[in-house]
Amino acid sequence: MKIITGGVCAAKGFTASGIRCGIRKNQTKKDLALIVSEVPASAAAVYTTNLVKGAPLTVTKSHLADGTAGAVICNSGNANTCNADGIMIAEQMCELTAQAVGIKAEDVVVASTGVIGQPLDLTPIREGMPALAAGLSIAGAHEAAQAIMTTDTKCKEVAVEFELDGKTCHMGGMAKGSGMIHPNMATMLVFITTDACIAPAMLHKALSTDVADTFNMVSIDGDTSTNDMVTVLANGMAGNAQITGEGEAFSEFMKALNTITVQLCRMIAGDGEGATKLLECRVSGAKDTAAAKTAAKAVICSSLTKAAMFGADANWGRVLCALGYSGADIDVTGVGVKFVSRAGEITVCAGGSGVPFSEEKAKEILLEDEIEIAVELGDGDASATAWGCDLTYDYVKINGDYRT
Amino acid sequence: MKIITGGVCAAKGFTASGIRCGIRKNQTKKDLALIVSEVPASAAAVYTTNLVKGAPLTVTKSHLADGTAGAVICNSGNANTCNADGIMIAEQMCELTAQAVGIKAEDVVVASTGVIGQPLDLTPIREGMPALAAGLSIAGAHEAAQAIMTTDTKCKEVAVEFELDGKTCHMGGMAKGSGMIHPNMATMLVFITTDACIAPAMLHKALSTDVADTFNMVSIDGDTSTNDMVTVLANGMAGNAQITGEGEAFSEFMKALNTITVQLCRMIAGDGEGATKLLECRVSGAKDTAAAKTAAKAVICSSLTKAAMFGADANWGRVLCALGYSGADIDVTGVGVKFVSRAGEITVCAGGSGVPFSEEKAKEILLEDEIEIAVELGDGDASATAWGCDLTYDYVKINGDYRT
Repeated sequence: MKIITGGVCAAKGFTASGIRCGIRKNQTKKDLALIVSEVPASAAAVYTTNLVKGAPLTVTKSHLADGTAGAVICNSGNANTCNADGIMIAEQMCELTAQAVGIKAEDVVVASTGVIGQPLDLTPIREGMPALAAGLSIAGAHEAAQAIMTTDTKCKEVAVEFELDGKTCHMGGMAKGSGMIHPNMATMLVFITTDACIAPAMLHKALSTDVADTFNMVSIDGDTSTNDMVTVLANGMAGNAQITGEGEAFSEFMKALNTITVQLCRMIAGDGEGATKLLECRVSGAKDTAAAKTAAKAVICSSLTKAAMFGADANWGRVLCALGYSGADIDVTGVGVKFVSRAGEITVCAGGSGVPFSEEKAKEILLEDEIEIAVELGDGDASATAWGCDLTYDYVKINGDYRT
Repeated sequence: MKIITGGVCAAKGFTASGIRCGIRKNQTKKDLALIVSEVPASAAAVYTTNLVKGAPLTVTKSHLADGTAGAVICNSGNANTCNADGIMIAEQMCELTAQAVGIKAEDVVVASTGVIGQPLDLTPIREGMPALAAGLSIAGAHEAAQAIMTTDTKCKEVAVEFELDGKTCHMGGMAKGSGMIHPNMATMLVFITTDACIAPAMLHKALSTDVADTFNMVSIDGDTSTNDMVTVLANGMAGNAQITGEGEAFSEFMKALNTITVQLCRMIAGDGEGATKLLECRVSGAKDTAAAKTAAKAVICSSLTKAAMFGADANWGRVLCALGYSGADIDVTGVGVKFVSRAGEITVCAGGSGVPFSEEKAKEILLEDEIEIAVELGDGDASATAWGCDLTYDYVKINGDYRT
């Protein structure tokens, strides 16, 4: 398997486009994205567990009931959530898209991201649709990835090439973060495409298995969005024999998917609202995977740990504190903690108590922009990784006045 | 019942003292507090549920096994937690206190607050003890309350006078916040004294019942401290007939206790690290109390809601989002939300969708320093209140470099 370029158009038969149609007040940011598959694709999605669900999710869920889709339409600048007419608007977005690309509205995936509770005007979408469809191209993957950004500062794309029974396959994805990120089934918005041939049921199995270890292990701010969704479209154009059950080909597909999702998780976490650092907490030596995951996520979610990392302060007591309240079944008297980065690594806690360490060396390690918090529980063989970011002035700034 | 002054010395037979002995590097802040009852008192406490527990909590728990105590010793500047010699140090603090005030070490409650994982040197405590004991007075309540402050900006004291079978009783308390506050059984440090006469078992019942609706409904930053503890000492000097079971006197005692604890909750929340506003979320119309509490606490804990309140931004979608992911059993299509403050009130959401409102009026309401977020679920008769504060630049500043 190798990392390649091309994002959501790395796979055969996919084109994409992104434009500014005017949903956002901002005069320069793109706000409407389209991805189209040349042929009908197997499709799977996972959605937020928030009881308040964006209208686009309800519409998409119904459109994907048959496991098939041909296009994705997504706007930024407005979440189309908590609006009395939300479902109708989302359905009309699908209808407009279907007309523009020549498929059925029931084969369109729709997504929205932005402010909750403000009516979404269909006019700019209707007026922008011809230009959006005309712009479809393989190079358009990058414009599409730009058009779904909200407070993201970096465009998030990744792609891989892999092999299934002698056929070269491709998979690519794009994502947006970067606030209201504490996914519980999926993350804000992730779109993955592949030309591998896989049955809808197996595609769903692959996706739902993968998100438990990837997107559900990311947290920026503890707030589970109303609009989280991860979708995968697999159009089969690579020509491999269709994957219809478990086995070597399915494992290979899972590996490709996991490579894409882990990279997107790291991009989402590292570009969290206001973030200056990517935090990765690896918990090992846990009794079981559930304990490892619970512990890793508690550390990543701790406001105090996040603020300490912003200040490059090796305040490991906050890591212990988070482990202790996490609810995970752990023996706190056996815990060891190390901070690791490009600048080296340093042990700060062993056997649940502090050990002497060089504050200067710790500072040097924590001044890097990718920090691993390595926790060894000494309780067993299970491990887990969670991703997050530091808590900064800019997080407060961005969210203190998001709407204006 | 009426609010009076006097803090932890409002009740008969209690004296207190607070000094700077040198545990903190800061040259002006007091760091050692003492409360003494003239006669042995019924005593009850509740402790953090964090698996990582401060050594003082372990020692206090063992000392309170017989339901009796005579003094409280508490230092700030060091949590005495995750230290290999922590238990021994906490026991020696009790021994020094016992010698200074002439009681048994087993009748001393010990508490510590500050940085986790740094050895606590007993020397300044030993050397300061004579001056601390010599300073005991009724007026010393205020010095004691000052000596337990860490990042608190305001001293937190409250007292009430009430009547039990014709006898005038008093109850007073002091507390410290203001970070690592997300109590689960108790809050950081709260000391309550009363001259009412009540059996230890009933005192414990009163306290554990009360904290479920008060301190456990406060959150500053979602981090449950390792050192949370609430203690009540009741020395019986008011002369009322001892409360040994439920009934009118117990109800009256519970009312006094709740008045003290709710005021302290509001003080702790309003003085959260970096806070500019006290947030109070009142959820009504819930199916049951559990749903009301879960919903109220989710709103108070939402980083995005907290940041919006800092910016006086009526971004009510974030309130709906928090209700939706809270896990509470609610019908999101029936939710109504109002923002309320001294400047008035404004309805922003009804039936789960937005309603038109004046942004100017909303801004005026949200610029006040005490904001109520009133949520009506329309599902039943249960209600609950949670307290928190806004998320500000100063929270990040305080916690980005707490140790240096």
